[in-house]
Amino acid sequence: MRYVLIMAGGSGKRLWPLSRQDMPKQLLKVLGGKSLLRIAFERLEGLVPADRILVCTGADYAHVVAAELPELAAENILGEPEGRDSLNAVAWPAAVLAARDPEAVVAVVTADQIMHPVASFRAAVAEGFTVAEEDPQALVTFGVVPTSPHTGYGYLRRGPGIPGHPEVSAVEEFKEKPDRSTAEAYVVSGEYWWNAGMFVWRAQTVLDQLAQLQPETHDLIMKLAADPDQLGTIYPRLLKISVDYALMEPVSQGRGTARVLAVRLPITWHDVGGFASLGEQLPRDDQGNATQGVSVLVDARDNLVINHTEDGRVVAVVGLSDTVIVQTPQITLVCPVSEAERIKELVAEVTARLGLDYA
Amino acid sequence: MRYVLIMAGGSGKRLWPLSRQDMPKQLLKVLGGKSLLRIAFERLEGLVPADRILVCTGADYAHVVAAELPELAAENILGEPEGRDSLNAVAWPAAVLAARDPEAVVAVVTADQIMHPVASFRAAVAEGFTVAEEDPQALVTFGVVPTSPHTGYGYLRRGPGIPGHPEVSAVEEFKEKPDRSTAEAYVVSGEYWWNAGMFVWRAQTVLDQLAQLQPETHDLIMKLAADPDQLGTIYPRLLKISVDYALMEPVSQGRGTARVLAVRLPITWHDVGGFASLGEQLPRDDQGNATQGVSVLVDARDNLVINHTEDGRVVAVVGLSDTVIVQTPQITLVCPVSEAERIKELVAEVTARLGLDYA
Repeated sequence: MRYVLIMAGGSGKRLWPLSRQDMPKQLLKVLGGKSLLRIAFERLEGLVPADRILVCTGADYAHVVAAELPELAAENILGEPEGRDSLNAVAWPAAVLAARDPEAVVAVVTADQIMHPVASFRAAVAEGFTVAEEDPQALVTFGVVPTSPHTGYGYLRRGPGIPGHPEVSAVEEFKEKPDRSTAEAYVVSGEYWWNAGMFVWRAQTVLDQLAQLQPETHDLIMKLAADPDQLGTIYPRLLKISVDYALMEPVSQGRGTARVLAVRLPITWHDVGGFASLGEQLPRDDQGNATQGVSVLVDARDNLVINHTEDGRVVAVVGLSDTVIVQTPQITLVCPVSEAERIKELVAEVTARLGLDYA
Repeated sequence: MRYVLIMAGGSGKRLWPLSRQDMPKQLLKVLGGKSLLRIAFERLEGLVPADRILVCTGADYAHVVAAELPELAAENILGEPEGRDSLNAVAWPAAVLAARDPEAVVAVVTADQIMHPVASFRAAVAEGFTVAEEDPQALVTFGVVPTSPHTGYGYLRRGPGIPGHPEVSAVEEFKEKPDRSTAEAYVVSGEYWWNAGMFVWRAQTVLDQLAQLQPETHDLIMKLAADPDQLGTIYPRLLKISVDYALMEPVSQGRGTARVLAVRLPITWHDVGGFASLGEQLPRDDQGNATQGVSVLVDARDNLVINHTEDGRVVAVVGLSDTVIVQTPQITLVCPVSEAERIKELVAEVTARLGLDYA
C-alpha cells in the first residue's frame, strides 16, 4: 500500500528567534496561522488516507507534532532522539513500514517549502507512486525546473526519458550546491533540475540498497525496527550522513542494484528557510511592509515586522526600510533584510555570550 | 539671598519610549546611571546650598524628583498640575520665593543639557547673580557662543557691553529658531549667541514686570503664592505662554521697566533632546555602537541600542548600522538615527491607534 512520510526534522536556525531549539520552523504558525507542517499535511489530501501518513521529527517535538496533526496515529510519529541527518530519517521509517507492510511504497516529502499549484504536486507524487509500483528497483526523486541559478539548492542532471512516462527521466548525476557560474550553466543547459529532496520508493527496496551500501546502518536500523525500546541506545550510534550522499549518488553511479529516476515537479517552490523568503510569502501593505502582531509603522517601507508577544508589547517604527524586526518574549532581532542569512552567526554569538537557553 | 530654580518640566517625547508620560527625560538615568536632573543639581555645587535649590516639575513627577534629589526640602519641589509653558514655571516660583524672602535673587537653570566645563557654568551663573544684585532692574539671560548654525535653538542679538563686566552685554533682540541661511548669517556676524534658556533675576523684579506686561497672570500667580491650596483651580486658568515671548522680548524692546542683559556662557552645550544627541553623550565601542542593557551585536556599526528591560530579554543585531533601537518593557522602537527627530509623529500614531497608555 501507499504511505507518505513527512520529514520534519531540523532546527531552522535561520528563522531564529521564531524558530528555537524547542520550536523548529516547520511548527511555526507564521503563514496565515498555519504551520509549514500543517500545510505539508494538507498538501497530501487525496494521495493517501491520514492513517498512512507518518512524520519523522525530533523526539522533543513529537507532542507538538501530535497537537498540530491530531489526525495522525501516535505510532506514526517517529521521534528521533537526536538528529542523525537524512539517511536515518528515511531509513528508520522504511524499516518500520516494511515490518508493517512488506509491499509498502513510501513517498518522502518535505515540510520546508510552500508549493504552487498544489494539484501539480499531488499529480507528481501520484506519478512517483505509479513508477515505484511498476518498477520495484526504482528510487524515485523529484526535479523542479529551475527558474534561477540558485546556489543554495542541489541539482540533478537528467538522463534519458522513461517510455510511457513523459514526466519521468533517469538521473545521471547529483550535484551539490554549485557556484554561481556553474549554476548559470546548469540553468542554460536545460539538463538540470533542482533536487527537491523528495522521494518515492518501496520500503524494501531502500532497505536492500542500504544493506549493500551502508551495511552497518542497515543492521542497526533493522534492530531498531524490531525492538523500538532500543531507540535511545541505537540511534546515537547511527552514521550521520545524508540520503543523497549515502544512497542516491552511489545508486545513480551504478553502485547499487536499484536505479534512480526523477519525476518532473512542475511547481513554483518557495523555501521558507529564512526571513527574506518568509517575507515573500506574507501579505504586504501598500508600502511593502509585512507585519504580524502588534506594530505601528510610520513612513516605513519593505520591512518584515513580526511581534510574537502577547502581553501588550508593541513594535514601533519610523522612517525605516528593508529591515527585519522579530520580537519574541525573550529576544528582539533587528537586521537588514539583506543580512538575514547571517542570523546563524548571530545565534552563535548570542549563545556563546548568554548561554544555550537563547538558542 | 541667592536661590536656584531647576526647570524640570516637559515630557521629552523625542526620547520616547524611554521618556514617557510618567517619566520625563530629565528623570531618565541614561547617562552613567545619573538622571539629567541629578546632573543639573550637582552642577550647582558651590553656588547655593541645597536648601535654596527649588525644582519646578509636573505634579505627577514630584515624588520621583524627591527620590532623585533627597537633599531637597519638600516645599522646594513645586509640582505643576499641568504644563502651562515656561512663563508660569518661572513666575510661580518667583512669587513663592518673594514671599519667603523679599530680596531673593533667583537663577533659573535647565535640566535638559550636558555642559562642559562645569566650572565655566558655575562662574557664569555666579556672574549672573552679581549682575542681578548690582542692578535690581536686570533680567539676566545667558548666551552660548554658537559652534554651528543650529536651526533648533533660539538666538540673542548682543548689544553694547556692560562696563566692569567683560562677559556681559545688553540684549537687543530675541530671535526664534531661524532658517538655515539666517542661522548661518547669525554665526558669521559674531553678534548672536544661542539663547541658553537660563535666567537670573530678583524675584520681585520679575513679578513687577509681570504686573506690567501680563497683569492677569500676575494676579493669579500672587493668589496662588498666598494660598497654595488653590493650585488645582488656579493653575489651569493660567495663560499658556513662554517666558521669552511674554517677558524677555517685550522687555528687550523697552516695553517694561527692566532691561535684559546676557552673560556669556563659555561652555560646550549638549542638548540631550533626542536619540542622536543622547548617542553622542554615551561611550562607544570600537565599531561606534553605544549600548545599554543586554544586547549582542555582530558586525554592527554606529548604532544606539538601549535595552531597558530586566527580565532576561536580549536585543540581537546583525549587519546593521546607524539605527536606534530602544526596548522598554512595553515598547520596542526601531528607527534610523537620521530619522530620530520624527519620533513625535510615531508617538502620535501609536497613541491614536493603541491609546494614551502608550504615550
